[in-house]
Amino acid sequence: MLHTQRITGLFGVRHPIVQAGMIWCSGWRLASAVSNAGGLGVIGSGSMYPDVLKEHIRKYKQAGDKPFAVNVPMLYPDVEKHMHTIMEERVPIVITSAGNPATWTCRLKDAGHTVVHVVSSVKFALRAQDAGVEAVVAEGFEAGGHNGREETTTLVLVPMVADALSIPVIAAGGIASGRSMLAAICLGAEGVQVGSRFACAVESSAHEAFKREVLAAKEGGTTLTLKELAPVRLLHNPFYAQVQEAYRNGASVDDLKALLGRARAKRGMFEGDLAEGELEIGQVSAAIDRIQPAAEILEEIMAGYRQGLDDLVRNAKADA
Amino acid sequence: MLHTQRITGLFGVRHPIVQAGMIWCSGWRLASAVSNAGGLGVIGSGSMYPDVLKEHIRKYKQAGDKPFAVNVPMLYPDVEKHMHTIMEERVPIVITSAGNPATWTCRLKDAGHTVVHVVSSVKFALRAQDAGVEAVVAEGFEAGGHNGREETTTLVLVPMVADALSIPVIAAGGIASGRSMLAAICLGAEGVQVGSRFACAVESSAHEAFKREVLAAKEGGTTLTLKELAPVRLLHNPFYAQVQEAYRNGASVDDLKALLGRARAKRGMFEGDLAEGELEIGQVSAAIDRIQPAAEILEEIMAGYRQGLDDLVRNAKADA
Repeated sequence: MLHTQRITGLFGVRHPIVQAGMIWCSGWRLASAVSNAGGLGVIGSGSMYPDVLKEHIRKYKQAGDKPFAVNVPMLYPDVEKHMHTIMEERVPIVITSAGNPATWTCRLKDAGHTVVHVVSSVKFALRAQDAGVEAVVAEGFEAGGHNGREETTTLVLVPMVADALSIPVIAAGGIASGRSMLAAICLGAEGVQVGSRFACAVESSAHEAFKREVLAAKEGGTTLTLKELAPVRLLHNPFYAQVQEAYRNGASVDDLKALLGRARAKRGMFEGDLAEGELEIGQVSAAIDRIQPAAEILEEIMAGYRQGLDDLVRNAKADA
Repeated sequence: MLHTQRITGLFGVRHPIVQAGMIWCSGWRLASAVSNAGGLGVIGSGSMYPDVLKEHIRKYKQAGDKPFAVNVPMLYPDVEKHMHTIMEERVPIVITSAGNPATWTCRLKDAGHTVVHVVSSVKFALRAQDAGVEAVVAEGFEAGGHNGREETTTLVLVPMVADALSIPVIAAGGIASGRSMLAAICLGAEGVQVGSRFACAVESSAHEAFKREVLAAKEGGTTLTLKELAPVRLLHNPFYAQVQEAYRNGASVDDLKALLGRARAKRGMFEGDLAEGELEIGQVSAAIDRIQPAAEILEEIMAGYRQGLDDLVRNAKADA
């Protein structure tokens, strides 16, 4: 139950740590920094035009030869083009999210790709397994960005998904340290996905001002909101205050859509407009206090994980 | 970091498991069943009149001589009377919640009681430590009943509180099994508090119909709501649907108060009115499927905890 080898074997990586595919943060630079340091780097295609995705994949390949993944939110309008690029470029691993895993899994597997799907409930985890995916990312309520409607937290979700599935589970949401990684492994996960901490990596393509705002975030500094559209966890800022004001004024779904408008996330996370932009980040931002190279983040998490494990083993011996 | 002896030593118990003080569930019968089996039983005074609390304490004492606690939500109107009873009856441990720990901690400690306070943020955890409490319960968003406004989950909250405090931390919210207990210990907790699973114990004073409804709960079956009054996690039922309807109709705080009325929780949890009552339970209800004696619950959790620890140790050896 507590092994991580199925995940490291499936991906061909040294550490069972997946860097989350994050819009405006995870281009080729972050992905290759993570993969070259032994984790699984992921290019987040949700904020990329088709030609931009192709460029990122090619630059990734120039920077190293380690396995990597592309994350594809399946509600993306140009999903066909993205999948075409992925197959053409022989991206080893595809992580699909926000859509029906049955649509693409067979085609991708037939073309030789490893397929993983992101879920926020046991129900959708079972559906993903039935569709033939080789692992799921089980993402809890505390995660940043788009999220499930059930609001199930990582602590509650992961054991239920691990019990229900025969394929391996990667825990996501609230994991930014070695001890939260160890906790996730204790819950039955065989790997972890880390988002917020890598959003603040040196190699993250997010705007410096956004990264600093994440470091400054305190507990209670994010809220899952816009649930009538697609639930998304946002950092509190003037735009978030506008959303709250809209709710107080009894905004309709159309009002919320109009307020959100287009390209809000780009404006906030990529262009650094902290007032008018949408700032997507996880609750664990409250515990992140440094901008570091991705390799250092990975090493710190692995060192903390091993330390926690050693402490447990030592205590278990002391108790015996 | 990973020891639990500070908690077992502080409370004088065999297992670092606290049974949550829960209105309409945890009277003397549940508390003594838990304490007699080696955990810390807690009488929940929030649903008791002063004379009822006294009766429960006396019956508890007749049923055994193990340490126990009384939980006191400090917003309770008759808090003075409850505290008087607690001091008069020499209750060894007092767990205060929902209020300022500075108000009672000194007086209780001077009178020889051990004092623990329930918190949902680092800020209030520090305040509790400053007030002199001897441990805190750090309770995450997934917990049942009344809950913090920050919505911080157990996975995110516990490591931050454990880092900030020198006194021991008891993790609460989403813990109903040995592996979630082990996860909490990995996060830096030195003990755990278990609510929902004990609400379904044979010895819980909750109505049988409520217990069965908890067993039937699926993921996404609870929601933290009524945030304008005091955030509370409720199981979905016709009363919860009325609350949702009120929100859709733009209900004011006064409208919500009027809808809630009085004694809704008693009606649902104690009298078994599943339609009109307020049903307080945690997210982890989705993973609870049996009504069992409290001693059996405690044994299963401890066995799962030890098994998880053994698995980790074995895997660590295999890796070495």
